[in-house]
Amino acid sequence: MRATVLQPGGIVRFVSDYSAPAPRPGEIAVRVLKAGVCETDLQLAKGYMGFTGVLGHEFVGVAESGRLAGQRVAGEINCSCRTCETCRQGLENHCPNRSVIGILQHDGAFADVVYIPEENLHPIPDSVSDDEAVFVEPLAAAYQIPAQLDLAKFRKGIVLGDGRLGNLCAQVLHQSGCPVTAVGKHDWKLERLRAAGVRAIRLEELPETRDADLVVDCTGSPSGLATAFRILQPRGTLVLKTTTAAEHGPNLAAVVIDEITIVGSRCGPFARAIEALARREVDVRPLITARYPIEEAEEALRAAALRDNLKVLIDVAKQD
Amino acid sequence: MRATVLQPGGIVRFVSDYSAPAPRPGEIAVRVLKAGVCETDLQLAKGYMGFTGVLGHEFVGVAESGRLAGQRVAGEINCSCRTCETCRQGLENHCPNRSVIGILQHDGAFADVVYIPEENLHPIPDSVSDDEAVFVEPLAAAYQIPAQLDLAKFRKGIVLGDGRLGNLCAQVLHQSGCPVTAVGKHDWKLERLRAAGVRAIRLEELPETRDADLVVDCTGSPSGLATAFRILQPRGTLVLKTTTAAEHGPNLAAVVIDEITIVGSRCGPFARAIEALARREVDVRPLITARYPIEEAEEALRAAALRDNLKVLIDVAKQD
Repeated sequence: MRATVLQPGGIVRFVSDYSAPAPRPGEIAVRVLKAGVCETDLQLAKGYMGFTGVLGHEFVGVAESGRLAGQRVAGEINCSCRTCETCRQGLENHCPNRSVIGILQHDGAFADVVYIPEENLHPIPDSVSDDEAVFVEPLAAAYQIPAQLDLAKFRKGIVLGDGRLGNLCAQVLHQSGCPVTAVGKHDWKLERLRAAGVRAIRLEELPETRDADLVVDCTGSPSGLATAFRILQPRGTLVLKTTTAAEHGPNLAAVVIDEITIVGSRCGPFARAIEALARREVDVRPLITARYPIEEAEEALRAAALRDNLKVLIDVAKQD
Repeated sequence: MRATVLQPGGIVRFVSDYSAPAPRPGEIAVRVLKAGVCETDLQLAKGYMGFTGVLGHEFVGVAESGRLAGQRVAGEINCSCRTCETCRQGLENHCPNRSVIGILQHDGAFADVVYIPEENLHPIPDSVSDDEAVFVEPLAAAYQIPAQLDLAKFRKGIVLGDGRLGNLCAQVLHQSGCPVTAVGKHDWKLERLRAAGVRAIRLEELPETRDADLVVDCTGSPSGLATAFRILQPRGTLVLKTTTAAEHGPNLAAVVIDEITIVGSRCGPFARAIEALARREVDVRPLITARYPIEEAEEALRAAALRDNLKVLIDVAKQD
């Protein structure tokens, strides 16, 4: 089948005759319609996680068998053992034995077919388009914030970063009733947030007053953390949504002195994300700035790394 | 009056004729009986906070005037403006205009007299000895952990560090019903924890299994954080009680991937600490390993920096 493969040495290559490993027990073949390029894909190509194999973990496809046969589906990316102590505690997304679609020891969705554990699949309602359904995975990650925190208690939220994930997090906070300001460096990205009703300002306009009680760092840059510590009020909460490649982080003395709480936040609730798309609580369509056929997935990744793109889609199934 | 002064350049000097600045409005003179040496004093002498002036923030004394005149008192160390937005939110300990006794723009208690805002004073019941009362401030810092976290929800707590603050935190967690293991490097310090009923093991005995849902870092060392990340289970909570002088901290990628919560924790509730001492819920007396008269406070600080001491007391008032 056709697939875009990350080869050792960080080489991303489209191949038309990829031989997929056999599906694992309990896995269903999903015929991929569309996929999205995520910052994580770019990091993987730089060596993050030491991954090799088919890239791609944001996708919509059609289940080929099982209870959802013939239906459009999105798939949760953590494939857990469901038997270990961590899984038994309900922390399947943190299973130490897990593989992760397109990220860790499991082929991904930049391919004609991706194999997914049947219990990971979620049907996509008709009212959600293929384009929108590609956003279920990253939007679920944004909805992990209200799953972890009671947003009603915050007075002033700041989302640092106007990129793909920053946009979704800012929309989710706004839609959840948290008074939020998105902060970024790119007028056209901020404009898209404003069009969604979100207050959005340039980084230079951010007052360095320590009065934010919630900061969500979606910058993927060490400077994001430094900015967060400058604007967080004592006892404030800092949500980390992105990692940086930098070897060291900041000294955490300010965390102790100001009694800051830092909350790491990763994958989130697919059902809530699908519901939000179906109800148009969040509009993801303005994030799409480029599309490539799967044959040009390598170019799609290059495009996604540029600042003049937000979400880059990869069309996998032949369009009618 | 007699005082032990941190002079510019990190010189600690006892002087018999210190001219104290006049008390600020609302401050009460407290005639100091005894004081304790804290890790923070040692850090201040190394340049932390750029402090100069009389050291000392753990003490018991006798109020010379006001509603507690003639009574023994301990004093909260944060002197807040009580008018700013932070104070009005109930975060007086984080007042940006605050001075801090013996730490920030306010003389401390290694002196015959220390001036303290009257509202910062807490009376010490007769059942609590002078020796014990010196521990009210650091014990309150340990009680900040149950003030910030619902300890009932944790299954396996680990306190890293068997020093002064580690000992108090481990006792407080144990006394609060949290299943806790203290981890340290010094058999005699661990033995004192065991005598207080706390499970205590050497660092080499700590299994590197990721099953702790609560880790309290009291090591004051960058290696403490690294150990914490090795033993914390996903969605675990890391309490930071001490700062390190290292310029950089760890990369926080693991915090995101494992959805760790980090909670900075500083000063705590004096009333709870006094109650715990009065009820003998926590035994602080075995922590005292040396005593010096105020004239030898410089030597007391040197002794406190040695690994063969836990709490070093400074006798200020002449003993009967």
